Amino acid sequence: MVSAKIDNMVLQGIGVSAGIAIGQAKIADRARVAVVETAVKRHEIPLELDRLKKAMALAKTELEGVKEAVAAKRGDEHLHHIDTHLLLLDDAMLIEETSALIEKEGINAEGALKRTLHRLKDFFSGVEDEYLRERSADVETVVERILRNMVGKKHEPLTGIDGKVIVVAHDLSPSDILQIDKTTVIGFITEMGGKTSHTSILARALEIPAVVGMERIASVVTEDAIIIIDGFTGAVILNPDQETFRDYLRRKQHYEYVERELLKLKDLPAVTLDGFAMSLKANVEIVEEVPSVRRHGAEGIGLYRTEMLFFNRENLPDEEEQFLAYAEIVREMAPKPVTIRTLDVGGDKVLTDLNLGDEANPALGVRAIRLSLMQPEAFRAQLRAILRASAHGKVQVFFPMISGVDEVRRAKAIVEEVKQELRSAFIPFDEEIEIGIMIEIPSAVIIADLLAREVDFFSVGTNDLIQYSLAIDRTNEHLSALYEPLHPAVLRSLKMVVEAAHGAGIAACICGEMAGEPEYLPILLGLGFDELSMNAVSIPRVKKILRRCTKKEAEAVADRAMTYATAQEAESYLRSVIAARFSDSFD
Amino acid sequence: MVSAKIDNMVLQGIGVSAGIAIGQAKIADRARVAVVETAVKRHEIPLELDRLKKAMALAKTELEGVKEAVAAKRGDEHLHHIDTHLLLLDDAMLIEETSALIEKEGINAEGALKRTLHRLKDFFSGVEDEYLRERSADVETVVERILRNMVGKKHEPLTGIDGKVIVVAHDLSPSDILQIDKTTVIGFITEMGGKTSHTSILARALEIPAVVGMERIASVVTEDAIIIIDGFTGAVILNPDQETFRDYLRRKQHYEYVERELLKLKDLPAVTLDGFAMSLKANVEIVEEVPSVRRHGAEGIGLYRTEMLFFNRENLPDEEEQFLAYAEIVREMAPKPVTIRTLDVGGDKVLTDLNLGDEANPALGVRAIRLSLMQPEAFRAQLRAILRASAHGKVQVFFPMISGVDEVRRAKAIVEEVKQELRSAFIPFDEEIEIGIMIEIPSAVIIADLLAREVDFFSVGTNDLIQYSLAIDRTNEHLSALYEPLHPAVLRSLKMVVEAAHGAGIAACICGEMAGEPEYLPILLGLGFDELSMNAVSIPRVKKILRRCTKKEAEAVADRAMTYATAQEAESYLRSVIAARFSDSFD
Repeated sequence: MVSAKIDNMVLQGIGVSAGIAIGQAKIADRARVAVVETAVKRHEIPLELDRLKKAMALAKTELEGVKEAVAAKRGDEHLHHIDTHLLLLDDAMLIEETSALIEKEGINAEGALKRTLHRLKDFFSGVEDEYLRERSADVETVVERILRNMVGKKHEPLTGIDGKVIVVAHDLSPSDILQIDKTTVIGFITEMGGKTSHTSILARALEIPAVVGMERIASVVTEDAIIIIDGFTGAVILNPDQETFRDYLRRKQHYEYVERELLKLKDLPAVTLDGFAMSLKANVEIVEEVPSVRRHGAEGIGLYRTEMLFFNRENLPDEEEQFLAYAEIVREMAPKPVTIRTLDVGGDKVLTDLNLGDEANPALGVRAIRLSLMQPEAFRAQLRAILRASAHGKVQVFFPMISGVDEVRRAKAIVEEVKQELRSAFIPFDEEIEIGIMIEIPSAVIIADLLAREVDFFSVGTNDLIQYSLAIDRTNEHLSALYEPLHPAVLRSLKMVVEAAHGAGIAACICGEMAGEPEYLPILLGLGFDELSMNAVSIPRVKKILRRCTKKEAEAVADRAMTYATAQEAESYLRSVIAARFSDSFD
Repeated sequence: MVSAKIDNMVLQGIGVSAGIAIGQAKIADRARVAVVETAVKRHEIPLELDRLKKAMALAKTELEGVKEAVAAKRGDEHLHHIDTHLLLLDDAMLIEETSALIEKEGINAEGALKRTLHRLKDFFSGVEDEYLRERSADVETVVERILRNMVGKKHEPLTGIDGKVIVVAHDLSPSDILQIDKTTVIGFITEMGGKTSHTSILARALEIPAVVGMERIASVVTEDAIIIIDGFTGAVILNPDQETFRDYLRRKQHYEYVERELLKLKDLPAVTLDGFAMSLKANVEIVEEVPSVRRHGAEGIGLYRTEMLFFNRENLPDEEEQFLAYAEIVREMAPKPVTIRTLDVGGDKVLTDLNLGDEANPALGVRAIRLSLMQPEAFRAQLRAILRASAHGKVQVFFPMISGVDEVRRAKAIVEEVKQELRSAFIPFDEEIEIGIMIEIPSAVIIADLLAREVDFFSVGTNDLIQYSLAIDRTNEHLSALYEPLHPAVLRSLKMVVEAAHGAGIAACICGEMAGEPEYLPILLGLGFDELSMNAVSIPRVKKILRRCTKKEAEAVADRAMTYATAQEAESYLRSVIAARFSDSFD
């Protein structure tokens, strides 16, 4: 514990939710409870088993209390975050393995629980999927809660805070975040977490600046210390000197000014100077994001990722649960459209009765539509839920990871069967629901003309398309230099997709990260895309550039960019265009 | 141990070397030495340590004896197989870890050695790469030899055998295979091994029918039992009944007849009926394959994989060692050309000072040219060795896993530097050496026209191209149905590559498995490829079809195949063409 005042100390974490916050630190007592493993005598073992059981029962009662409070404050849709933790408490492994350790090893309950936690963390750290790996934070939060109960510490809620504070914590659970009052908590920093953790997604949804993954921060910061957090860069400054303070204050004011200015574009049409309308939509994962989607003027949801419903639970969500989740977003957005993507994960990430084993290359493995076609019952349940939701607003559905015509036909045949079942049961759905596919596999690009005949729209997943086209794992840090959105093969692929789509009279959309980066707008507009879907907060920035372009000049930019043999040349050209034409739009 | 006579028992292994052999079993006493781990008293520990050291020293002496015998019989080029085992004996880990176990655990040398073996096997079994995984067989063979020496059993060589026998063994080391006299040993079966193990590659090179991976076979077969092995299908029949015996005898005679007939084509030109000459070459990994390459009438080596030189050793081969290996194959083949591919492996497979960590998706990771460009010194050593070898015959060089123009330019710049060094040192090399690239990444297909301006030839790796284009790991058994060589995206890709090559006036070759499958010949010929490189034994079969085609009809077949929207339709069309036109050529 460092208690001396450290001035202007700059630390680096992972910025997960945009914005700058300046305020006093509020240390949430979430630091790990110090655990000492001690041997216990034979006759004390029943006592230790009992302590474990009671602490777990108390944790459950506490969480159920939090659940009620959150339900009252924010509504039902948030509860599955807390349910995740309740499920972990019910996990037989946690109690059985820990009890067995107490008995076999003759150690105290705290020590045994800590050992179980380490085993679970080891297990999660070996998992290849980033999302699942970060689930170990959930386990840790639950175990901390139990330990706290054993030693009699209280889990203090983040409510009743005076003034404006930045919460600093070892970890914050989704329930912590949902209890946050934005008028008092203006930002947070945690030791745990990553870009895709539940907590980070919620922070973005609620637009609270946040930096995570800052090891030991909770023991470095002193209560009431002045802190600056930069949710863009992940920088955290403790006790800033005057110059730094003024600098960040300026940046914060500038950002907020730009945000306000950009939000004025909210209700202006997304059209070019020469009258070409491009549809700008939002990507979402959870219903909590809908207010932000509306606030940023999205014309709909262009990509609703359904994965969140499937993660981190003991049983798959059934049709009814899925229907409720889909219908809620659809109703919230109506009459604007919601484009729902069917499950896009690998077999390692969800419960499956397929014995897929360890895949040597999960990115090239059984995932997405491949998994759905191998598990037609689960796929049908999801399709029924989506179709039923289509009666409550405007819905489109699309399939991820299509590599050929055969897969599309098989998926569509199942949609037809499900429609027939619904008709027979007089369950309403949109008979005219549009069906699309993700274009993210190179073979789909090359036969885009054949695929265009089969569907109503294309949505290009640029991240995966770049990954597969260049045969580079985009999570592999050694290959980051090879991940080139302006690689001539990528630009040609995008062009082929648009031409195939328009040749068949269907829409060409992009829902990958390229769509949300304003500097690529001239290229994507010039290539002829009809729709871009991105993080809600990027929409005003992209719209601003769009409204300052003509389609004609964008076409010239795209044509020119495609003449280069290397991505470096194309990038340098694009930079020069941006500098000459739009530099004042990139605040 | 089953001693009762089992009649007509059909067992299934992995066929690794083509051909049928019928003969009496000769059980090579290679079964594992039974090891019992026993506790030893404190004062006995030095004795156990000494037993270990002596057994290892004896194993070394034995292997050096084998090495001399093999060198005398077959020449120096085979020695690195035995060197591999000698290196393992010198591995500090083997002796140190085993000694530490004897001391710390107070157990006998056999028990400790067995524990070390299990640890090593565990390690190897966790390795993702199939080749490396199979190296655990080498470790096991060496450990068996040491154990045998401890218990005083002799390692009986496979020489001095009377009559024609099929050797049945737990495992055969490369030195065992190299000692085999083909006039007496007509085939072999092992419990260990896989398609890419050293032993299997040697069996194919020496054209001895072989089946591997047959667990427990050595304890099921009795000495002198009649055995049939089918090196195509991996079937092994013990004590065949009369009908089965006659059936296989017919098949064997038929195969040998066809082989003889096909070999008559050896010196006939590889031209179509309408006079189009296609170059048919061989893929090789080791110099032992050269006699087979010649015997099958290859017009050169279209793909010399250099990986074998780099695997399974304590230090990287230096320039001199590489030069000797390359020059030997080049001289053996001269004046026919040898196309040498630079190192095509992932960072996990060779010694590297790069800390690459575990890659989540090794197929999309740091491999091939990416690794070479990250390790320019190792790359330069290989290029110097290849260039020096080019003074001894006709050499071409090419780079694997090219994704863009920038990589080609960087690799060529290094070639230029190396050439300049050689010139300055008056070291001879072919100034006109041709430089090519593998086309196996989708982006390379899409910008094939840009790449064609940079190089002298293209060689398409169809296996990887299919894998990356369709985003399927071809080693993933759950996706085997999606691995479709006639997928319209694959056919279009091949067409794009040929057109780009011919547009720039360079040659378009194929060195993937498609090249060696005669049924694809009409398509590949029709698409316009100039050269096919394949396993030597496939050359006569492919040539036979080629000589019965016209280029014109092949073009019509290719054009028609490309009209189908799915691979299934294209395959069914191709099958009908083969049935109508070439059925009598597929014996």
